[in-house]
Amino acid sequence: MFYFIIDILGIISFAISGVLVAMDKRLDLFGVFIIAFVTATGGGTLRDLLIGNTPVLWMQEPTYVYVIAGTVVFAIIFRNQLKYVRRSLFLFDTIGIGLYTMVGISHGLQSGLPPVMCIALGTITACFGGVIRDILCNEIPVIFRKEIYATACIMGGIGFFLLRKLPYDDAYAYVATILIVIGIRLLAVKFKISLPSIYRSAKEG
Amino acid sequence: MFYFIIDILGIISFAISGVLVAMDKRLDLFGVFIIAFVTATGGGTLRDLLIGNTPVLWMQEPTYVYVIAGTVVFAIIFRNQLKYVRRSLFLFDTIGIGLYTMVGISHGLQSGLPPVMCIALGTITACFGGVIRDILCNEIPVIFRKEIYATACIMGGIGFFLLRKLPYDDAYAYVATILIVIGIRLLAVKFKISLPSIYRSAKEG
Amino acid sequence: MFYFIIDILGIISFAISGVLVAMDKRLDLFGVFIIAFVTATGGGTLRDLLIGNTPVLWMQEPTYVYVIAGTVVFAIIFRNQLKYVRRSLFLFDTIGIGLYTMVGISHGLQSGLPPVMCIALGTITACFGGVIRDILCNEIPVIFRKEIYATACIMGGIGFFLLRKLPYDDAYAYVATILIVIGIRLLAVKFKISLPSIYRSAKEG
Repeated sequence: MFYFIIDILGIISFAISGVLVAMDKRLDLFGVFIIAFVTATGGGTLRDLLIGNTPVLWMQEPTYVYVIAGTVVFAIIFRNQLKYVRRSLFLFDTIGIGLYTMVGISHGLQSGLPPVMCIALGTITACFGGVIRDILCNEIPVIFRKEIYATACIMGGIGFFLLRKLPYDDAYAYVATILIVIGIRLLAVKFKISLPSIYRSAKEG
Repeated sequence: MFYFIIDILGIISFAISGVLVAMDKRLDLFGVFIIAFVTATGGGTLRDLLIGNTPVLWMQEPTYVYVIAGTVVFAIIFRNQLKYVRRSLFLFDTIGIGLYTMVGISHGLQSGLPPVMCIALGTITACFGGVIRDILCNEIPVIFRKEIYATACIMGGIGFFLLRKLPYDDAYAYVATILIVIGIRLLAVKFKISLPSIYRSAKEG
Repeated sequence: MFYFIIDILGIISFAISGVLVAMDKRLDLFGVFIIAFVTATGGGTLRDLLIGNTPVLWMQEPTYVYVIAGTVVFAIIFRNQLKYVRRSLFLFDTIGIGLYTMVGISHGLQSGLPPVMCIALGTITACFGGVIRDILCNEIPVIFRKEIYATACIMGGIGFFLLRKLPYDDAYAYVATILIVIGIRLLAVKFKISLPSIYRSAKEG
């Protein structure tokens, strides 16, 4: 139940981030809904496709469609007031990527994949909805350019496999993973830490 | 047989719409073929991937490849005359999305998915070839920005599940679905109806 | 063993081509890694998804991740010296697409697909990593616009199915395919041959 509430809050904040990007591009109602939908479900969809878990999760669970549709209607109506809840949205989004990282890792373990692939699946689940959103909106994905976002998920995933070696139940490692992801993301934003851009001194290489 | 002819006409008109976009981008012969191919088959491919119906349909049916290749050659040779058949192309395209909506819904029912997912699959089958075409050509998908296109497919899908409750054979509901999609699209184009763009009054939200 | 070395050299040169494009876009470390990764593995991933071969190949083989990660670190450190190995990279890349074409065809045969689909899978395996790289970097894929690249793979594939009719072991046809792809690509670059752009004389068609 607790898990379910966090899941829904994560989906809502992902969907709203999609609505915001879609409105900047002046898409129509259908476009806004699709962008919100892929932002919220795209990471999990890519994960399910890569491991062959079909029909993909959201196809089997209509709740997601209704929650996202409701969120889109709500976000459009209150579109000029969204700035007042920006901090809450950021927090939900951060909790969301922590949770999704854990969900992705758990799917990888169930498919019998090696640790590095589980970490990849966790990161894909948490981050690639935003990647697909940006591609559909004709932008280079923001997580390839700035912000500690995927990095937090990768760190959380590494933390999980280290902690898992301790003689405790896996549940502790899962909770710790979520906290690591959230903690790194919050610290990175607070102290404005980001990965360096990589480029060449001259272009003719 | 009748179904087959409509299917081929739909593929031809989708492929030509791909050729037209690709020529505007001055792609080479290979690029034009790929854009035509994904426009015609991309929606069904995405549907097959999401429900796990692999190898995807066009892999099992070489006819599609030959029809699309022939269409591309034909469209390139007569590229400066295509404007004279624009009305026919629009009509084939409209019939095509009606048919594809129905095909997608029918795949969803076969996979035992709930109605809202069947409608989603119908819309994906009909519309997402064009989405992939636009992404490969570095444009924001046109159906996210204007025109009643996906909306007609969604309406047709809702119509199908309403009509299906009547005590008639499903075949009638399928035919009615195709007619609803075609009707809404024709009316929307005739009366220049489109969904409103969604945007904020200020950007700082 | 010989096969394995060529495979690794191909992956390294694909990954470096990804690093070069990503650096031109000034992506951060994570972005550079992802672009390198999809360039090297994207074609095979798309092939595996289309035929339903899941979990996709790289998920089952962590070696790829480590080779690509090492290549990215190396390429970033020596980013201003990469021009001195440009010829070697071009050669590895060309050998790589020859090999990948053959690998794709062989997967198609194993899935019992008709020749035209096997050739399509070979071309997808060899070329679509670069397509996904360009889409993620917000460019129209370079192989749709210029250079004999996919064409060489298609020719190699056609050659395979012609040679296969001769009364020799398939192994000869596979080797010949690789040589055909490499030969056509080298000749095309040496003599600056490319496919013509397709466009209309006027835009109103």
